[in-house]
Amino acid sequence: MSANLLNEFEDTIVALATPQGVGAIGIVRLSGADAILIANQVFKGKNLFEQDSHTIHFGKIIDEETIIDEVLVSIFIAPKSFTKENVVEISSHGSPYILQKIIKLLLQKGARLAKAGEFTKRAFLNGQFDLAQAEAVADLISSDSEATHMAAMNQMRGGFSKKIKALREELIHFASMIELELDFAEEDVEFANRTQLVELIVKLQKEISKLIESFSIGNVIKNGVPTVIAGKPNSGKSTLLNTLLEEEKAIVSDIAGTTRDLIEDEIHIEGISFRFIDTAGIREARDKIEAIGIERTKEKMKAASVIIYLVDLLTETERDIYLEKNKLQKLGIPYLLVGNKTDKVSLKVKNLLASNHPDMILISASSEENVDQLKNALIHLVHLDDFNTGDTVVTNIRHIESLTNTQTALDDVLKGIDKKVTGDFLAMDIRQALHHLGEITGEITTDDLLGNIFSKFCIGK
Amino acid sequence: MSANLLNEFEDTIVALATPQGVGAIGIVRLSGADAILIANQVFKGKNLFEQDSHTIHFGKIIDEETIIDEVLVSIFIAPKSFTKENVVEISSHGSPYILQKIIKLLLQKGARLAKAGEFTKRAFLNGQFDLAQAEAVADLISSDSEATHMAAMNQMRGGFSKKIKALREELIHFASMIELELDFAEEDVEFANRTQLVELIVKLQKEISKLIESFSIGNVIKNGVPTVIAGKPNSGKSTLLNTLLEEEKAIVSDIAGTTRDLIEDEIHIEGISFRFIDTAGIREARDKIEAIGIERTKEKMKAASVIIYLVDLLTETERDIYLEKNKLQKLGIPYLLVGNKTDKVSLKVKNLLASNHPDMILISASSEENVDQLKNALIHLVHLDDFNTGDTVVTNIRHIESLTNTQTALDDVLKGIDKKVTGDFLAMDIRQALHHLGEITGEITTDDLLGNIFSKFCIGK
Repeated sequence: MSANLLNEFEDTIVALATPQGVGAIGIVRLSGADAILIANQVFKGKNLFEQDSHTIHFGKIIDEETIIDEVLVSIFIAPKSFTKENVVEISSHGSPYILQKIIKLLLQKGARLAKAGEFTKRAFLNGQFDLAQAEAVADLISSDSEATHMAAMNQMRGGFSKKIKALREELIHFASMIELELDFAEEDVEFANRTQLVELIVKLQKEISKLIESFSIGNVIKNGVPTVIAGKPNSGKSTLLNTLLEEEKAIVSDIAGTTRDLIEDEIHIEGISFRFIDTAGIREARDKIEAIGIERTKEKMKAASVIIYLVDLLTETERDIYLEKNKLQKLGIPYLLVGNKTDKVSLKVKNLLASNHPDMILISASSEENVDQLKNALIHLVHLDDFNTGDTVVTNIRHIESLTNTQTALDDVLKGIDKKVTGDFLAMDIRQALHHLGEITGEITTDDLLGNIFSKFCIGK
Repeated sequence: MSANLLNEFEDTIVALATPQGVGAIGIVRLSGADAILIANQVFKGKNLFEQDSHTIHFGKIIDEETIIDEVLVSIFIAPKSFTKENVVEISSHGSPYILQKIIKLLLQKGARLAKAGEFTKRAFLNGQFDLAQAEAVADLISSDSEATHMAAMNQMRGGFSKKIKALREELIHFASMIELELDFAEEDVEFANRTQLVELIVKLQKEISKLIESFSIGNVIKNGVPTVIAGKPNSGKSTLLNTLLEEEKAIVSDIAGTTRDLIEDEIHIEGISFRFIDTAGIREARDKIEAIGIERTKEKMKAASVIIYLVDLLTETERDIYLEKNKLQKLGIPYLLVGNKTDKVSLKVKNLLASNHPDMILISASSEENVDQLKNALIHLVHLDDFNTGDTVVTNIRHIESLTNTQTALDDVLKGIDKKVTGDFLAMDIRQALHHLGEITGEITTDDLLGNIFSKFCIGK
């Protein structure tokens, strides 16, 4: 049986499904019409053809006479599997050498190596879920915080898709009314009430705008917030950074075997990651004057989404603070003005500062005073304080593009109604809006689009 | 239910079973009496108590109201599992963050984190396999070549254990005869024929010697062969090294997702790994005279199990070769004398060299002439040319210690017979020999011994 004679759908794919490296268990996954046939050729113990779906079987993987490993084989019979095809999972001892041997053997028996994302692509093409849900599978796998996890889970479970589908259905209803008009064009009737149509479009646009706006949060959730700690030499930048990072280390729990790698210079607040830009520089420089050129600081600040600006309460004057605030406002990047070293000034000075600068957060980085208030302020600054983990949030730039295109098409519909164009023109623009909404959930797809989406997955998924 | 009230056997352990890192799938494994009870508390979809052994169930892992992931849960009901306890495997999306959340949740519900090797230790204590087989599980997981794979597989499937048990049974037969004599000590009879006993002991000692000797091969299989390429400056050391390593790169296949990491400066010949010592030095030095001090070369050579000594056929005289061979012989380390640059000398010179030095392998590292012959000679040098992958080979230093102790006890038995000591003394020495043989397969164990063995396993196995 030559693989060339089969189309992409009919052949059986194989890949390592577990992470690379040594572990107790490793899993090789087969999917396709011949998955059970191929596995059965190398499995000794039972006839896999005679087994029920969702059952597990102990036996040996053999290459001619040689035993490769003792394994557990799980059988999933189409359509009751992730891909809706026949699926076999071989669970062997977690040696990369053994796993590679098993994969090679399955390739010899007629499977072919899966491409990146091909299991999930098949699941989508076979109707297991829509495109936005398929994309959420990849997001889920790479989720590494409360917020990314919840956003991906909500999307995979269809929360976002449901919203898009509801919008689409409302639009389709009106589209069909207008198409009906076209059939009776000679008679010059209007089945679709224009006032109602305008109301609907305005309502849809509002909802779509809300989704588009959610991307500012979605982006923060997915990609984190580039953050800069700035301030004059000796204002305590490296001390604050170390205080924040030490807390992070203490928070990340250490369940052996699953500890996620601490990304250098990143902290999580309420599930959102704040990445400190160029902190290596801060650390090396240790606040030495010569190391922090004015130009370099400005560049760093421009790359940030958020600036934590430290004022040295011991040495800076009211005029200094005034000038610095002025510069920060001109930059146009959200910032926190933070007075540092409260442990070194008198209560009187503290009270005075608090009344003169109600927007300034007063902390002591070295004695960790008020650092929690600083963290809350960071969350507030990125507009996340009123965000609920259950909210539908757009995290995918492809979805934003489609939503923006939908919005444009709906603008055209409104303009058309305003100019009293005929139904056939309106129908065209509505169809365009429907097209773009359909791209999100995959009612409308192209090979290029699918290739682009699934090539970003890892192999084995 | 407090974990403190339960002994080690009765509580339920949990760990990540798949390698760390991001993958399509990750597996969390529970084992113990309450494995199904604990899993059932966080699983939504079905009542896991009502399911048959060896079945798979789709559902959600939930923490109160929050969905952690959609998962597949595999049920193994005692004693039909790896540990012979109830086992549950939760197969989730392969995000370390999600896997950690699931483990935390299971800890909250009453599981405790497994120690290194604890699953395999339970399998051993519950009689799934003997101690030598349990140790082979770890070897199998870390196997990374044909030879390590086959040796571990043979040991795990009981090949080695069977030999030890056969030796033990023969000895037990005689031991019981002698113990019988002790019961009739007053009557001064000999149930155990002394001549036959001597014959048996000599036969057992022969077999044990063979096993002990196999460790020189076992060690080579398990730990590889430290190899040095030596020779005068410009003899072509780095060229030969590069030729060997380039071939290795070409051999290691590249199935995406499973490619084993190329260990720098290591090659595999017939499944055996040859590691080149201090090759970084060779490479940097590029045969420059100043980089290879005589003392340093000597030190390197002493750390080697095998030396490949290169002679520059273009520049070295018969006297040079004679002196070098002399030095090599004095070192007492197995070596190959290799004449390099055959592509640069005439056929006449080549023939002359071949007849003058039948022990010298003539190669050209740069044109790759005869490099295969060099490889065969390496395998011959480590006594592997008559080794079959099916042979029982001792790879574990603990087993060698026990075998050596057995041998000493058997020596004492022979001495005793020679000195015509009474049966009770003989019985003591035979019991000692039995004790040491029993340590290998775990008929005789102590907590310390088990702790020592299983702490070397990874967590999750």
